[in-house]
Amino acid sequence: MNAEGKPVSFVHGGNVHAWARERGEKIASVLDYSANINPLGLSERVRQALINSIEQVIHYPDVEASALKECISNHYQVDTSYITAGNGAVELLYVLAHTLRPKRVLIPAPAFCEYERAARAAGAAIEYMYLSAANDFVLDMDLLCSRLNGIDIVFIGNPNNPTGTLLQVGRLEKLLSAAKKAGTMVVVDESFMDFISDDQVYTGRPLLSHYDNLVILHSLTKFYAIPGLRLGFCLSNSKLTTKLHAAKDPWNVNSLAQAAGVAALADKIYQSKSREVIEYQKNALYTKLKALAGVRPFMPAVNYILLDISQSGYTAAEVGRALSVYGVLIRNCGNYPGLSPYYMRVAVKLAEQNEILLGHLEQVLRRNS
Amino acid sequence: MNAEGKPVSFVHGGNVHAWARERGEKIASVLDYSANINPLGLSERVRQALINSIEQVIHYPDVEASALKECISNHYQVDTSYITAGNGAVELLYVLAHTLRPKRVLIPAPAFCEYERAARAAGAAIEYMYLSAANDFVLDMDLLCSRLNGIDIVFIGNPNNPTGTLLQVGRLEKLLSAAKKAGTMVVVDESFMDFISDDQVYTGRPLLSHYDNLVILHSLTKFYAIPGLRLGFCLSNSKLTTKLHAAKDPWNVNSLAQAAGVAALADKIYQSKSREVIEYQKNALYTKLKALAGVRPFMPAVNYILLDISQSGYTAAEVGRALSVYGVLIRNCGNYPGLSPYYMRVAVKLAEQNEILLGHLEQVLRRNS
Repeated sequence: MNAEGKPVSFVHGGNVHAWARERGEKIASVLDYSANINPLGLSERVRQALINSIEQVIHYPDVEASALKECISNHYQVDTSYITAGNGAVELLYVLAHTLRPKRVLIPAPAFCEYERAARAAGAAIEYMYLSAANDFVLDMDLLCSRLNGIDIVFIGNPNNPTGTLLQVGRLEKLLSAAKKAGTMVVVDESFMDFISDDQVYTGRPLLSHYDNLVILHSLTKFYAIPGLRLGFCLSNSKLTTKLHAAKDPWNVNSLAQAAGVAALADKIYQSKSREVIEYQKNALYTKLKALAGVRPFMPAVNYILLDISQSGYTAAEVGRALSVYGVLIRNCGNYPGLSPYYMRVAVKLAEQNEILLGHLEQVLRRNS
Repeated sequence: MNAEGKPVSFVHGGNVHAWARERGEKIASVLDYSANINPLGLSERVRQALINSIEQVIHYPDVEASALKECISNHYQVDTSYITAGNGAVELLYVLAHTLRPKRVLIPAPAFCEYERAARAAGAAIEYMYLSAANDFVLDMDLLCSRLNGIDIVFIGNPNNPTGTLLQVGRLEKLLSAAKKAGTMVVVDESFMDFISDDQVYTGRPLLSHYDNLVILHSLTKFYAIPGLRLGFCLSNSKLTTKLHAAKDPWNVNSLAQAAGVAALADKIYQSKSREVIEYQKNALYTKLKALAGVRPFMPAVNYILLDISQSGYTAAEVGRALSVYGVLIRNCGNYPGLSPYYMRVAVKLAEQNEILLGHLEQVLRRNS
């Protein structure tokens, strides 16, 4: 339920299929600003790995995902005994929830809807700690720590989706320490961490060996532009990792995703180019959005920007409908607990695409002014 | 635990990756008789669908799997409201177990190990009803019905893996009726049903609208030779289907698997040719295995044959090790509850491959005679 006690809607962004079905159009004609996917698209090495692996689909995937886990271990500097590979990070949210069966879950809101949906699937009651737009949705760590009593799991997005806020590792450690005393698991979703150049300032990975109550989720589909393949992993203490392996389908990660992951993690040029391009375009798009009348963008950390458009007089649903006529999809954030119907989120894409978005958005908003 | 009270080992067949890793060899050099995959391999239409879909992996998969579900609905003549698409049928075993949270589960044994593993992951206690080799592992339906009291779920493979036994739909209905009175869910695994020409004699699909306590699992990876992609579905009453959707990752079926499924279900020539070839080779391989000294094959229903090799003096582990030297993998069934270390299973492949298997098997067994 959201703040008003209404049931939460679990509609997501990125549903280009529904858009294409409704209009009888091809997916390729969508400009999808509703999903936060690396605008550079498939790395050539990943494309080649996929083509080369097609003949291998007649075999079961490697149940141990050995090659993939070795690459993850090297790339992220974590012990393989901490790694559970997933059919996307979201699958692991469900495996985690079904394994831990939390009774009470706390979520600083707004947050990615799947934390709530997975926890509910396992029978948990959800409590929100609402973050304040006036304070740029910054997490009040003292307040959060004071609310851990009786909470089984707290979910944190770092960077948080859709607000784009970041938590430094020192503040995360403060939370872990308080949570340890309270008997609370802390699940940190670092699915957008790869977009950050100085990620060592923020990632909780070095804390894994010190805090048994830390779980880190990590998607590989956003940064490497492979959401259709499904690929992610989670990191947790070895004991919990063993439990997660027992609670999941042994063949959960398909062989093409495993091959793509290995190729992606090896592609250092794609990685640095992606960070460079997105860092630049993110700042450029933020500046231009800020200049639009009726739009208040929140400072982005990675490849998406949250907008408060209440001053425009339009709801996000109205703007979304108007933009979809031009084949531009945005994320209406009105169904996020803690956000009003006037919030929307856009991805950061390449300059030319961002100009199209800005042009249409300006046109749509101008109608009311 | 198996009959002797030892913990069950969940090692599976089809692990060509472990074989290749241990020997530093390529997967392509394995003759994998341990996994029951259609020996015709990828259908050309599926291969083309995969190639054509690679560029689409930059989008999220269709959360509704609309095109796939429509094809499943048409091909299997079931209402779409009954369908949950899965990342392989096995994923859905786990979703089902985590959703229903059974306390007591009954499994006629030997059976596919994942029924037990998924039920245990959800906290269930497992009870076995041991089938008798002397009676060709035929299911005693009266005995099964008499044991349903207090059982939350009973799992039935139809055809059963590894025994190859089949259950006619009339006998299944008897079970469903008794189970309904006892408050027991019946999960029928029809993952090998596509290999059977007269499947209407056996499938429980027409009973779905009459029995709310029926769930049918169906893999699409075996018959269409796409285990690496992961694809399956389950059929259940609409209310349970809604619950299963709420308990799973919304993006569980990757887009390549969805595209492959659509192409596979449309390929009627591949389907009829597969059934024809395997029906013929299955009978030929059975006859030749029967002629080998020390080998007792059980009558196969589909593309795998269970063998009792106790009269050879060798265990399945010994034979498996000897064959693996030649790059031939078999399924040692010694870890199946209800089977001794003298049971093994082989897939049915093409004539030339089956001759290689027979040649090596004869040679290995002869050493002891």
